[in-house]
Formats: sequence, C-alpha cells, structure tokens
Amino acid sequence: MRIALDAMGGDHAPGPIVAGAIRAAQADPELRIVLVGDQAQVEPLLSGASAVRDRLELFHCTQVVTMEESPVVALRKKPDNSISRCWQQLAERKVDAIVSAGHTGAMVAGGFRLKLFLKGVRRPGIATIMPTLQGESILLDIGANVNPKPEHLYQYGVMGNIFAKHILKHDRPKIGLLNIGSEEEKGHDLAKDTAALFKKSPLRDQFMGNVEGRDINKGICDVIVTDGFVGNVVLKMSEGVFEFVMKMTAKELMATLQNEKQLGQQALQNIIKRYDYHETGGAPLLGIDGICIICHGSSGERAIENALGMAARYARARLNERIVKELAAGPVAADKD
Amino acid sequence: MRIALDAMGGDHAPGPIVAGAIRAAQADPELRIVLVGDQAQVEPLLSGASAVRDRLELFHCTQVVTMEESPVVALRKKPDNSISRCWQQLAERKVDAIVSAGHTGAMVAGGFRLKLFLKGVRRPGIATIMPTLQGESILLDIGANVNPKPEHLYQYGVMGNIFAKHILKHDRPKIGLLNIGSEEEKGHDLAKDTAALFKKSPLRDQFMGNVEGRDINKGICDVIVTDGFVGNVVLKMSEGVFEFVMKMTAKELMATLQNEKQLGQQALQNIIKRYDYHETGGAPLLGIDGICIICHGSSGERAIENALGMAARYARARLNERIVKELAAGPVAADKD
Repeated sequence: MRIALDAMGGDHAPGPIVAGAIRAAQADPELRIVLVGDQAQVEPLLSGASAVRDRLELFHCTQVVTMEESPVVALRKKPDNSISRCWQQLAERKVDAIVSAGHTGAMVAGGFRLKLFLKGVRRPGIATIMPTLQGESILLDIGANVNPKPEHLYQYGVMGNIFAKHILKHDRPKIGLLNIGSEEEKGHDLAKDTAALFKKSPLRDQFMGNVEGRDINKGICDVIVTDGFVGNVVLKMSEGVFEFVMKMTAKELMATLQNEKQLGQQALQNIIKRYDYHETGGAPLLGIDGICIICHGSSGERAIENALGMAARYARARLNERIVKELAAGPVAADKD
Repeated sequence: MRIALDAMGGDHAPGPIVAGAIRAAQADPELRIVLVGDQAQVEPLLSGASAVRDRLELFHCTQVVTMEESPVVALRKKPDNSISRCWQQLAERKVDAIVSAGHTGAMVAGGFRLKLFLKGVRRPGIATIMPTLQGESILLDIGANVNPKPEHLYQYGVMGNIFAKHILKHDRPKIGLLNIGSEEEKGHDLAKDTAALFKKSPLRDQFMGNVEGRDINKGICDVIVTDGFVGNVVLKMSEGVFEFVMKMTAKELMATLQNEKQLGQQALQNIIKRYDYHETGGAPLLGIDGICIICHGSSGERAIENALGMAARYARARLNERIVKELAAGPVAADKD
C-alpha cells in the first residue's frame, strides 16, 4: 500500500508530519509513504528512521498553499504546491491514498478540479468520526459542499452507512438526518426532500428520520447526514464547547479538591487525550476515486500516524467498491449534476 | 409590570411553572403575573402563596398545545389554548410580556399569526444567551426563521447588539457572523450577502466579520448572528456535548480520585448547576411589539423565575424603543417582505 503524504501541510509542518509518517511506517510493514514537499526541509527529518527508510520516499516540490490563501487562486498560481502534487499522484494511480493536514479547502478543491469522483457519486463529502456515549458515529458532510442538493445528502447517507459498517463495525447502521426537531414536518425544504429520498431508497429501514443536535453525542444513530455548512459549524462548535467545559471543570476542581488536586488534573488530562481533535486521525473525503484523508491543521505526529492508519484501513475494507455498488442500486441517477 | 405566563406549557406543567411564578413575585414586588391555564389545576397550587396572592391572577382556558402537535394546525384547532390566550392578552395590551415553556413552534407561530412585529422588523428571531470564557454572548436566531434573507440576519445583528449592550452590559458589542471559516470569501451566498449588508450599515465598526463554531464559547464576540436552522442545531449540539463531556469526566474522575471522590462529584455538580440549560432563563423572541420569552420545555421553577425576571429586565431597559430607532437608521427598508 502506497500513500502520498503532504509533508508541508499543517500548522507545524513538516516536523510532526514526518514524525507521524515514521511512526506509521514502523507500525505497519505494508505501508510505503511518499513524503511530498521540500526535499531540503524533509530529508534531514528522516535521519533517525533508518529501519523504515526504504519505505519512505521523497517527492520534491517547491510550493505550499498557506492557510490564508483562497484555495482556487492558490492552486492556479502555485502549480508545484504539495497538495496538487499529492492529487496528481493519486490521479496517475501511483498511490492508493493521499493524506494532508494542509488547507482543507485546497484539498477539496484539488479533487473537485480533477473531477476524480467515484462512479455514481455526484459530490464528495467530508466525514468525521464523533465520539458518543454508545461508541463512535460518523457525521458528514463537514464542509466540502455548503450548498448540497437532496441527492447529495442521500449519497452521503449511502457512503456513511458503508463507512460505519466496515470501519466503525456497526452491524446495521442507523442513519439520521440532522434537523431542528424530530417531527417529520420540521426544517427547510432540503431536509424534507432528503428525507423523502431516503424513504424510497434501499436504506429506508435503516433511516430513522430527523435527529437533533443534542442527539449526536448520545449516539442514537451511527450516521448523521447534514450539509457542509451545518456540519462544519457543528463540528467546530463541539470542539469549542469541549474546550470550554474542560477549562471550567479544571477551575472548579482546583477550587474544590483539597489533597487530590493532582489526581483530578490527571483525570481531566485523560479525557482531553481521549477526545481532543488534535489527537484524532483524519477525516475521509468520501466519494473520491481513490482515498483522500484530510487532517486538522493542528495535527501532531499521533494524528498523522492515525490518519495514515485510517487510509490503510479504508483501502483494506474496499470501501470504494462497495460504495459504487450500493449507489448503483439506489434511487439517484449518476450523472445529473 | 404585568406578565402573562403560560401555566400549562412545559414538560412538567403546571407544578414548577406556578412555583416559579410565586418565586418571581416574591423576588420582585412590581411584578403582576397572569397565570394562563386550567383554573382547576392551577388554583390549588397557589394555596401557599398568600403573601403574593394579590399579584397572581388567573386567566382560565381549557386547551393546551402538546409537544407532538403541528403548531399551525394546533393553533387553529384549539382556539382556547394557553399560548394563544397569552398572545391575545399581549395584542390587547393587557400585559407587557408573555412567557411560555410550551411548544416553541406554537409560541413563534402565535406571534407570526398576529403579525405583532415591532415597527421596521421584517422577521422576529429567537435569541439565547451563551456562556463564554469572557462572560456572556447572545446567539440568534435559534429557530424562528429557518430560511432567512440577508436583511433578516442584519436585523438580528441590530437587535442582538441592543440586547448585548443593555441586558448583558457589553459596552460596545462585537458582532460576528457564524460561518465555516474566518476568511471573507467563505460560506454560502446568505453569509456573503449578510456580511455586505453589515459593512454598509451603522454597525460596520462593530461587525468583525465571520466567526467559526469554535469561537462561540471563547467569547471573541458578543453577538453571533446565524440562521434559525444552524442556530438551533448548534445550540442543541452544545447541550449534547456538555452532557457528554460531563458524563465522561464523572466516569474518569471516579476512576482516578481516591479519597476525594465526593468533592470531585461536588465540583461537577457546581458546573452543571451553573451551565445547565434547564436552569437558565428563557430566550427572548426579538422583534415582537411587546415582550415574548420562550423557555426550554424541561424548565423547572428556577428557570421560570429567571424567565420572568428576564421579561422584567427587558421591559425596564426599554429595548423595543431602542430597536425601532436603530432599525430606522439602518440600510434595510421596513416593509419589503
């Protein structure tokens, strides 16, 4: 398995990115990782990795898309940027997967530009794994598509279902549509039309209708479908609330505990370590003909290692084959957009 | 000051609703509260309130909108329901404010039906107070208007600004537009067109552009403007994340602490008490000609007391006069919808 990793993408690149690649290569002997970036910066970081050095390749490129740039403009003006070079290798079938902690918009735009979509997919969407009281769920789209049609949301349900089944190992995933109330008549036209599509699809028995924001972390369903605007805001809100609650709790604990302040601090650190988004792996861009994993800009080496692991699991579970097959059996025609 | 309180609205009505009214009347000698509901159920609950009994009136009605009903249908089929009776008294100027923990959709629909809008207001919106690391902010709309136009969002900024200034006591509120990135070109047309409106309005110097989900609880701005769909999902998501984090933290604390488990539990209870939405007061429906406060369905007596207090503060700060004046000075014409 061969994965192109954007060595220059991320708030702290290339240090933790390359370190994560080394860890992933050490953990999985089948992995070959192509580090895409400035050779002069990347090569010195490999000095300590002699045991896996033969499975770490370098692909030199001279440019980087910065976080402040408009993705479309940057991709055009900087043809030798690391994100475009990753996509190019995927399009040429030189790698099975690409991973980046760089500019999310540029990663998505890179794939849209090449139209490297899976057969039958109208519009790819980014999925993220959410921790819940019942285990893990998947939420999508979280930002690839801010103006989706009902057909796109339905396809997110199909792809999310396959991901939840074969990666998260939910036997028969329950699919919910994020809305402002559980009753059928709630919400805007997009929600109503999407629900109608699910109800006449092969997923009808797994579709549980509307779910609300507060249901996500309860884990009452395994796949939560929403548009990229709402999904993105909701995901970032949950990061913000998490941070807020942990800070308030730390303050309160320190004011209340007497002799076990350190143990209390430890408990909070454990929680943060377990749920902090900096530590979790990447988010797959579902619907790409190939595998594309998008990481948080602040990803550290553990996050990069996890994201590379996610790419490998994705490939081994043959998700894309399954997606193509199930989309063909559904109510949405392939080529209408 | 005279407030009509929907005694029948809420998951546990009328018990905690009437108890909250008694507490509010005890706390504020200027308050007269009209309890709207079934006399046979409400009157016995007043037996212990002799000291304030003369300021608690009864307005008998026979029907209730239940949480499962479609609001529009229910308001039509049940003309003697407690929500409509509250609105009727407001329209007839018999009360200054109305408060309900009943069906949110029916409360909003009741006001829209009467078109009891403030001069210049195109569409009322529900505002909620959010706790932040810097104090309190206001988020609106959280569900009155799921298909807003840019003009509506701009007006939410005007109303939210006045609320943040005169109720939350922020000197010169900063106004942010909830979006999927801070850069100007981000998001959908609604966001872009709304930003353009703010920039040519008298609020231009207070408008700080786009803010992201994770910024809300940081308190980087005092007023967060969004559409009713996103606002509703975000608010409920934050409730869900709060609950999730507190449960996970309790589990971890109990596993880590040794002799001070009880103190740790106490610290968590303090946090829950401070931030739990069941305990906070109601959310004002801004833009109504009168005062309308909407409470969480699970409101207990403290929440009802707080909501009645909010109605009184709202009236005393003369928010509506200020809203009419500032809307007239802005770029949005009054009567285009």
